[in-house]
Amino acid sequence: MPLWNVYCPGGAFSAQQRKTLAADITTVYTEYGRMPAFYVDVVFHEVTEGSLLIGGEPVNNFIRITVAHIARQLRPDQKRATMDLLESVLARHIKDRGFDWEIHIDETPRELWNIQGFRPPDEGSDAEGLWIKENRPVPYDVGTAQEIESETHRD
Amino acid sequence: MPLWNVYCPGGAFSAQQRKTLAADITTVYTEYGRMPAFYVDVVFHEVTEGSLLIGGEPVNNFIRITVAHIARQLRPDQKRATMDLLESVLARHIKDRGFDWEIHIDETPRELWNIQGFRPPDEGSDAEGLWIKENRPVPYDVGTAQEIESETHRD
Amino acid sequence: MPLWNVYCPGGAFSAQQRKTLAADITTVYTEYGRMPAFYVDVVFHEVTEGSLLIGGEPVNNFIRITVAHIARQLRPDQKRATMDLLESVLARHIKDRGFDWEIHIDETPRELWNIQGFRPPDEGSDAEGLWIKENRPVPYDVGTAQEIESETHRD
Repeated sequence: MPLWNVYCPGGAFSAQQRKTLAADITTVYTEYGRMPAFYVDVVFHEVTEGSLLIGGEPVNNFIRITVAHIARQLRPDQKRATMDLLESVLARHIKDRGFDWEIHIDETPRELWNIQGFRPPDEGSDAEGLWIKENRPVPYDVGTAQEIESETHRD
Repeated sequence: MPLWNVYCPGGAFSAQQRKTLAADITTVYTEYGRMPAFYVDVVFHEVTEGSLLIGGEPVNNFIRITVAHIARQLRPDQKRATMDLLESVLARHIKDRGFDWEIHIDETPRELWNIQGFRPPDEGSDAEGLWIKENRPVPYDVGTAQEIESETHRD
Repeated sequence: MPLWNVYCPGGAFSAQQRKTLAADITTVYTEYGRMPAFYVDVVFHEVTEGSLLIGGEPVNNFIRITVAHIARQLRPDQKRATMDLLESVLARHIKDRGFDWEIHIDETPRELWNIQGFRPPDEGSDAEGLWIKENRPVPYDVGTAQEIESETHRD
């Protein structure tokens, strides 16, 4: 669910640095959001030099992150705490390496989201527990989460 | 209106496969959404190997689709039916070819949308009918849809 | 705050044309939105030929712009006026150069947005005035905008 798009200068992250950043982001969502690890998608996009401009001026040391939250809608009291948690991850991987950065999160409708053709189970349901345990989308039945067990994902 | 962004591995879709996927997506919106075919934008983005990570691990067989719906806001009872329709398209082009995939849709404000400098006509209006027939944005007058006929798109 | 993503054909904009377009966009937000110039991010993404399809057909003369508004939520009466203002910029840089184009704007939650680890100050606050003057994110104290002065951005 959370989809992280990381727009960064070419070469900003090695393959290993991508893995550790994505792993640390994942931990926030599994530990605090109690969701399956496989919900966390991180995509790195290298931006061509001169193609990212701030206030009309090209910048080549800037990392712009956009995030879509789908599985969980944050309560008002959770919003700033979540930003602080995520910033603690960004500090290690971005700030401490000397990059400038900006991040924003959008929240999108849970009903308009599928993984592998399945509607993800309701938050906190037994079926979601199964997805966490299996760490992959698996069929689940209506008895556990008002969803029809079907490989052909009828609703 | 619907803007589809398809983030895929390099070489996942040939030029012909892009056309047939985009054409099948378009059909859903023209037949079920009754909107002009030219509202349907599909953009393919090839993701560099190792740049898309799920749960902290790079995956190279995964297609992530993000969609923005602008022209139509789905009623609650239409949401899951729409996902099912779209999945039937993805099954042919993605699932049956052995890729993993995830899709989510966001809905954005219709008033903050222009094509070719024109505010698209109201849903179901005569002017929208004209756009469907012409399959391109053309000037229309206020008599048909509370919009001023103007090439300079004053509001 | 506003994040502009400009999806364009390869070579559509030279380095200088990127700067003048981004500068003109920035002016709209600083003059009409009264916000710091550094809030305005513009990212150019060159789309590979045949990778952008409209109504199922590849187009190679089309510029698709997506915008996220974060710092300001437009009032209903401001929405169309804002589109018109922005179109006047696009006319000079896109329409007059013979490209086709489409733009839409989404509005995302202000509380879920940080620059350089800081929560941007409230609209119209003294702290925001300081950010405008300095044209960079600087620490500010709770006395000016209900925000704690802190490099570690506790909330």
